[in-house]
Order: sequence, then structure tokens, then C-alpha cells
Amino acid sequence: MHFDIVIHNGTVITMNSDCNIINNGILCTKNDKIVKIEARTSNMPLPEAQNAIDAEGGIIMPGLVNTHTHLPMALFRGLADDLPLSRWLNEYIFPAETKHIQPESVRLGALLSCAEMLLSGTTTCCDGYFFEDHVAAAVNEVGMRAVLAQGVIDFPAPGVSDPADNVNNALKFIRKWDGLTPLIIPSIFCHSPYTCSKETLKKAKGAADDNGVLFQIHVAETKDEYLQIQTKHHATSIKYLDKIGIIDQNTLLVHAVWLNDPDIEIIAKRRAGVSHNPESNMKLASGIAPVPALLKAGVTVGLGTDSCASNNDLDLFSEMDTAAKLHKVNALDPTLMDAVTVLKMATIGGAKAIGLDRATGSLEIGKQADIIIIDTHKPHLVPLYNPVSQIVYAARGSDVRDVIVAGRTLVKDRKLLTVDLENIIEKVIRFSEIIKKK
Amino acid sequence: MHFDIVIHNGTVITMNSDCNIINNGILCTKNDKIVKIEARTSNMPLPEAQNAIDAEGGIIMPGLVNTHTHLPMALFRGLADDLPLSRWLNEYIFPAETKHIQPESVRLGALLSCAEMLLSGTTTCCDGYFFEDHVAAAVNEVGMRAVLAQGVIDFPAPGVSDPADNVNNALKFIRKWDGLTPLIIPSIFCHSPYTCSKETLKKAKGAADDNGVLFQIHVAETKDEYLQIQTKHHATSIKYLDKIGIIDQNTLLVHAVWLNDPDIEIIAKRRAGVSHNPESNMKLASGIAPVPALLKAGVTVGLGTDSCASNNDLDLFSEMDTAAKLHKVNALDPTLMDAVTVLKMATIGGAKAIGLDRATGSLEIGKQADIIIIDTHKPHLVPLYNPVSQIVYAARGSDVRDVIVAGRTLVKDRKLLTVDLENIIEKVIRFSEIIKKK
Repeated sequence: MHFDIVIHNGTVITMNSDCNIINNGILCTKNDKIVKIEARTSNMPLPEAQNAIDAEGGIIMPGLVNTHTHLPMALFRGLADDLPLSRWLNEYIFPAETKHIQPESVRLGALLSCAEMLLSGTTTCCDGYFFEDHVAAAVNEVGMRAVLAQGVIDFPAPGVSDPADNVNNALKFIRKWDGLTPLIIPSIFCHSPYTCSKETLKKAKGAADDNGVLFQIHVAETKDEYLQIQTKHHATSIKYLDKIGIIDQNTLLVHAVWLNDPDIEIIAKRRAGVSHNPESNMKLASGIAPVPALLKAGVTVGLGTDSCASNNDLDLFSEMDTAAKLHKVNALDPTLMDAVTVLKMATIGGAKAIGLDRATGSLEIGKQADIIIIDTHKPHLVPLYNPVSQIVYAARGSDVRDVIVAGRTLVKDRKLLTVDLENIIEKVIRFSEIIKKK
Repeated sequence: MHFDIVIHNGTVITMNSDCNIINNGILCTKNDKIVKIEARTSNMPLPEAQNAIDAEGGIIMPGLVNTHTHLPMALFRGLADDLPLSRWLNEYIFPAETKHIQPESVRLGALLSCAEMLLSGTTTCCDGYFFEDHVAAAVNEVGMRAVLAQGVIDFPAPGVSDPADNVNNALKFIRKWDGLTPLIIPSIFCHSPYTCSKETLKKAKGAADDNGVLFQIHVAETKDEYLQIQTKHHATSIKYLDKIGIIDQNTLLVHAVWLNDPDIEIIAKRRAGVSHNPESNMKLASGIAPVPALLKAGVTVGLGTDSCASNNDLDLFSEMDTAAKLHKVNALDPTLMDAVTVLKMATIGGAKAIGLDRATGSLEIGKQADIIIIDTHKPHLVPLYNPVSQIVYAARGSDVRDVIVAGRTLVKDRKLLTVDLENIIEKVIRFSEIIKKK
């Protein structure tokens, strides 16, 4: 067999079910798939391929999976920080969205986010926003893999002035993108149990089920939400959603901070996925999600950055580092959330939480070739005793050298190949000048 | 006046007492000092200088100050993680130190750490370790600014087989380096109140006072220490140290996690500095230092990374991001530890905590020219609404383009100029092969 790409001279972190690590590994691709992974023995010739990539002693690993983003909000990175949640939302984020979120700005913000994600090793994301059609166009242009959803909320929103149309709009998006291109998987996103009525939630979940797509929802994010749902529905957010039939194995519960033990039992029993966003939850002071307990209960947990407005970046390397450390100090137990557990959340766990674990999240024969190469020849990455620990505790997004998605090289030697990054940056700067003036 | 360096075309974050920010600023140096800072008006010609540095629209700011390091321990980066503190220390770190810490390895580890620090924007560090003479040689070779101390502990230690010699050894180091070169400031470092006797602590503090140098000590780091000191001295660590006369304005209290309100009052009254090491405290699950309360009481707090064995890097950018977010979520208050407060800790606050605020930590006329330039032309650093927020929440160490210490350019376009980084990395890799075998 003649291969398309052969990657060699690196340590392969597979993230397969045994978490195998292959020193001096070889990985071959054909079309969009991984077709060979093995250790290179001495004197073994390099398999023939159109393109040989020398990892130069670095780390070869699965592309990272970001289970929660709002890509266009990169345009609001650092617009307002260190404020109470209500002032941040009502005085800055909502007005900025109302004024500035249009199809063209959504596409621009999504392009910027895709560039940032790829250049920091994320090959798959799971997104929800408005004008999502234009997010999809940007993701498609860049060549990433993504689960994308048109947002549903019971208020007038950018592009959906009448909330009565919200679910139909989201359905239109699903029908348009279903099967259109292999890398974009449509989904539906209800904002939250306090901004969507019971009827909206049930209608949206019904639409998700009818179309066999992932249902995403922000849930149990803040204490305020907890109190509000308790008052209105006399239940926790999870119990309320479960009662109305929203939680099952095709549901992604985003944040999941304010949970009690019965909530965790429900999530585990229903086999729903959880998106853990530690940096956003820290910065907005929402709280610390009980991730060790969720994992212990057998729940699939992925990592997410949330939007750049509340993080303020999309770097899953720093998110891994933070996730590992936050739960240790919270429980005063340094053995919690070890490096392998955290790397799983950022790869195969995340893929599973968003329903893509058969395609991506690990390097295994037959799976999609979503691969990143880490340049470890840097002062902060030597010595290297344990590659997984190095990835979680020392590596940064900027150490990602090459990025391959579905067998196609999108980043080579830290250069983004599919779109004109200079042009995107210039347009974003020009756009931000308008925001600053208003 | 003809200047040595003129830096132009960037936003200057001064970190002076008003935290002035100068758009399109100009900064000039002569010899080792800053001699001019101003806004560039239209049509204003660039001042004449031997060397003009174009910041290309980036950020010009003070070099960062790392108030707590053990530089040679970079050799043990990732050697063992996710373990209970006692197993981590007794099964990995202490044996590795006993076997592998020699003058040559100390120098090598310190060179590696200096390279990492400079390439991530740190221009000053405050260190304590064994064979510190060889740390000083490495720091001197690289050209950084540092407060350095020979460690004092009541056990046999690398290079000090008889603990009875510990303070004398540290004194020898102070006498050798005092005034030898302007960038190295000797100090003394007692390991902790539970590993040094009352006599050792008093003798070491006396030696520090006699020589007018900073006295550093790990204190109130873990619950175990808290319980041990309570049992033995019937007081908190801070109260015990205060009773024996250790805490004053020339004392740096490192970690300071397990404090009660009277402890905070003592620290404030004595005007001691605190080194806050959030990532190390999180990774080792020591606890969360009450930094907002310390700041409220008027205590000077600096940021530190601790060693690479417990972090696992020396990047103060990620340390700032973590510090800002950790305290917000801990208090469920997003207004705590705003970006300016955190950047102060990493610059002028840190400089003050280690007694160097008259020399470094801010960009002001007459101060030392310790300057870094951030390349903001990157997808994760646009748009840019607020430079301080961008530095704390979005920038990474790898965004540092140029580094100047005492008027001398040490890093240019991300290349370290003073030492052969390739050679250091190769030697470190070879050294780690020996550690792995044993």
C-alpha cells in the first residue's frame, strides 16, 4: 500500500483504550483515515508515502476536542473583564451582540477562532451561536471538524427577531448541513433551562431526536440559576430537565457546576455527556464542577473553553493544566485528576461527549486522521520523563507544530495553510475599532 | 542626548504608581537605565539611538518578576506527578536530589531555567537552592537579574553534608556575591519552620540582618505543616516565626497558604512580603492562599512559579491567568483579583516583595531597563480592547518577542543571545537519560 502521509521520529500518544504510548512510532494515513500505527524497529525502512513528516523527536497525538465554544465571540475577547456577571452580560456582551452580530461578523469571528484553535492543536470543536450558517461556512473554509448548532433562546436574538421561530430556524440549519460535508455535523443548542420555556426545550429536543443529532444545553452553571430553577420548578436544573425528558445519551450538559449527588446519578443513568469549562467557570466565578465525582460515577466528561469573552482564549493546553490543578486543590488531594485522566477529557472523552468518538479523539487504525505534532525541542519541554505529564503540565498551544484534520495538513511549521491569517487579523482589528467607537 | 536603545511603535504598560498606559509610546535607554518614556506625537522624529527597536504595534512592558524558584529543579520537570506529597518527595524528589545534584548539574539546570524564564518574559527571579554558587554562575552567564540564596536546612543536603555548617555556608555565598556584579543580589533562604530549628532560624535571620539581605522562607504551605507547628510550638507558623523575631520588612514569606486573620495582621504589621505560588499550591494540593485578604491588609504580594518539579513550568503568564481566576472562583466573586492587581503582583509587587522595587518592576525614568516586548499580531491576541486584560487573560510566555535586562538585549525575535540554547537542551536530555536509568 502506498500511503498519503507517513509521520515518523516521534513518541505517539494514542489515547486508545489502553492509553498506549509508542516510542519512535510510525503513523500512516490514506485519504482521511489512519491506516497504520506501529513502533519503528531498527533498520526498518520508512513506509513509502507521498508525504513524509519528520516529528523530530516530538510528540504525535490526537488533535484536541473542544466541547464548548461560541466561536464568533472571539470578537469580544477582553471587551470587559472582572465584572459581576449581570453587569458583564447586560452592559457589555448583550449590547455588543445586538449591535455587532451580523452574518459577516459571525463569519469573521469564527475564522479567527478556527485559526486560534488550529494553531493551538484543537482539531474538533462543538459550537452554538446565532447565524450559525456563517460559522459553518467559516469552519468549512478552514477545514476543521465541528459539531455546530444554531442557538435557541426565548428572546429576540441576532438573526431571529421572533422567538417563536427559534426552533424552526435551528431545524433549517440542521437540514441544510446534514450530510453536506463530512466534517460538519449539525446539532441543536438550547441556551439554558432559565431562558427557554418547557415547551421550547421539549420541541427542540424532539427536533434533535427526529434528526438524530446532539442536543446541547448550558445547565447548572451558576448559583443564580440554581435558585431560579428551584423557585420556579421546585427541582434542581438537572432534575427538572430530566423530568421533561431532555437528558439522554444524545445530550451534552455544558458547565454542570451546581450538581448534587442525585443529579450526578441522573446524568450517569441517562448516559449524557458533560462539557467541563474550568477556566470560564473560574473567571465568571460560577463555581467548580464536581468532575471527579462525575468521572467516578462513569459519566463521560469532555473539556471546553467556552467563548473568548469569558476565558479569554481557546487554548485547550492551558485548560488541561487548569483542570488538573483546580480539582486537586479543591479537594486537597494531589492524586485527583491525574494527567492521563485530563488528557482523556481533552481527546477521546470530549469526542465521546459530543458523539464523535467513532471518528476522532484517539489515534487508532480506521479512525479519522486528526493528528497534531508537538515540538518538544524547547527549554520548557525538556527533560521529558513522561509525555502525557509533559502535555498536560508543561506544553502550551504554541508548541503545536503541525496539524492534520481528516488526512489533510492544515498547519505546517505553525503556518495556517487554508486561510489568509494576515487578512483575518487585519479585518478583526478594523472591526474592533468600530466596537471601540460605539 | 544620544540613546542606546529606542523602542517605538507599541503600547507601553508602565506599571508605575498610576498604572499609566501610553499608546504609541517611545522608551529610550542609556547604559542600564530607562531615560525617557513618552507618547509619540504625529510628525515627531524618532530620537537618535544606536539601536531602534520597532515593537510593531505590540506591547512594551516591564520584565516579569518571579519571586520564588528553585532553578536547578528544572532537571526534574515531570519526573513524578499526581502523587501524595510525601511519596512525591520521599520516593522521587529527595532521592533524585541526593543522587544527581552536583555543581555541574546545578549549573545546567539553572541555565535551562534561565532560558525558559527569559523566553517567557521573566527578567528577575528570586531563588534558593543548594550549590547556589553555581546557580549564580549560570544566572550571570545568561545576564538575568536575580536574588539568590544558598539554602539552609537542618539535614544533610547536597554540598552541605554537616547541617552544622548550613548557615556558615550560606554566609560564604553572601560574602562572595555581595557587590560582585550588579545583577546578582545575594540573600539567605531557610527551608521552613519545620525543617530548621529555632536556633538555625535565628542565626540565619541574624546573618541576613548583619549583611542587609533578604531572608526567604517557605511558610504555612500545607495543612501538615500547620498541624506540626501547632503541636510543637502551640502557635501558627506565622505566630511562631514572629515570636522568634524572623518576620520584618526584609522577610519574604513563600506560599503563606494556611493563615488565619491574626497571621495576616502580623504580616501586614511587620511589612513582610509574600510570594504567592498558585499553580504549585494547586498541583501539590496544598491549598489556596488568602491573597485577596493579604492585599486588603496592605501586604505586598508577588507571584512565583515555584520549581518546575511542582508546576511544571516557569511561565509567569499562565501563573497570572491562574491567579486571577483561582481567587474569583474560590470566593465566587468575579470582581476579585482584577487584571491590574494581578499584573502588579507579577511586576512591581514582586519587585517590592524581594526588595528590588527601586531597580525594577516598572517602566519609569531612572529605573533599570528591564523591558519585554509582546508580539500581539497573533490570532489569540486580537482584538485588543484592554492591554492589561490581554496580558493577564490571553497572552502566553511564547508571545514574548524581545527581552532587555539592564539595557542589554538578551532575547531578540525569540532567540536567546547570550548562551547556546541548543547545547543546553542537548546536555539536559543526556542528563535525563542518566536519571531515567537509575
